[in-house]
Amino acid sequence: MYPDSLQDLIESFKLLPGIGEKTAERLAFYMLNLEEDKTDFFSDSIKNAKNKLHKCPICSNITDKDICNICAADNRDKKILCVVDDCKSIIMFEKTGSFKGMYHVLDNLISPLDGINPEDIGIEKLVKRIEDSSFEEIIIAVKPSIEGETTSLYIKKILEGLKIKITRIASGIPLGADIEYIDSMTLERALVDRKEIE
Amino acid sequence: MYPDSLQDLIESFKLLPGIGEKTAERLAFYMLNLEEDKTDFFSDSIKNAKNKLHKCPICSNITDKDICNICAADNRDKKILCVVDDCKSIIMFEKTGSFKGMYHVLDNLISPLDGINPEDIGIEKLVKRIEDSSFEEIIIAVKPSIEGETTSLYIKKILEGLKIKITRIASGIPLGADIEYIDSMTLERALVDRKEIE
Repeated sequence: MYPDSLQDLIESFKLLPGIGEKTAERLAFYMLNLEEDKTDFFSDSIKNAKNKLHKCPICSNITDKDICNICAADNRDKKILCVVDDCKSIIMFEKTGSFKGMYHVLDNLISPLDGINPEDIGIEKLVKRIEDSSFEEIIIAVKPSIEGETTSLYIKKILEGLKIKITRIASGIPLGADIEYIDSMTLERALVDRKEIE
Repeated sequence: MYPDSLQDLIESFKLLPGIGEKTAERLAFYMLNLEEDKTDFFSDSIKNAKNKLHKCPICSNITDKDICNICAADNRDKKILCVVDDCKSIIMFEKTGSFKGMYHVLDNLISPLDGINPEDIGIEKLVKRIEDSSFEEIIIAVKPSIEGETTSLYIKKILEGLKIKITRIASGIPLGADIEYIDSMTLERALVDRKEIE
């Protein structure tokens, strides 16, 4: 019903998650009213991102250089490695400004129900990297879900022979949160992991 | 913090309405995982839509042809004209399959508070078209808001001298709706516009 080039744009938006027919129509019409330099920027950004971005061969972080900025930096602490399951986590940790070590991004979290087994998380790359480096501590910073816990325990088991300190980030009640609205699993973890006040 | 080409893609998504930082990040990462033919399609669709689409010189509907499909069709009733305020309304009326006349899209609805005055709605184009054609009825099918009502009355006044029947689409309770949830303005209109059961 719409002209082909408009229908194509609507179909394009529908490729994205959470965008249905109505939203796609709204976004397509909105885009027609943007200035041409903005739509060109959008169109070129898609092409560029797809062509230039790839995984860092060392840490699997996303990068448009040969080696990602963090692996290439010479002012980072090469004795401590933070293992995450998502590139976005790196950005979040970097924003805190309190971690100066290295990162490693897993391909996946173990989730047998989704067909993701231990061999699918990129463990060889992680183990090889640790064997070839001189890390003194591995911080496992995956999300505290069932999949995250399973993956943490698996990595812990695989690395056991290497005599490296393995830690995981703390779970508990977020700062400023109201206990009334915290789920019981988190509350339980907060109780179990309680710390003496010093 | 993100690689430039990823940051550009995130900024692109942020150009769209209702898409903030977090959603833009999520969509950008999602797009990186789409196959290349889909991202190419997306990128090309933006360029094509922007380059090819324009307003039909007769009715102001959006089209990628010289004259839009409806104006160019020879099986439509050229005696009846439906005036809308949005191209999307045309698609909605066409989906009903019950209207076989012509359409005309206004540039705007009159809204003095937003700086949109009667001269900004494209009235000359509409009047000239009506004068040059042989319409017997003009149906005003703009949305039943204050702006829509103002615009309807204004068009009615402008066309008064032309001795053409001017109608507006009915307002009232949508079919299947629960009266409990209908706003009082709509209920009032439904009462005032009541029809004898035949």
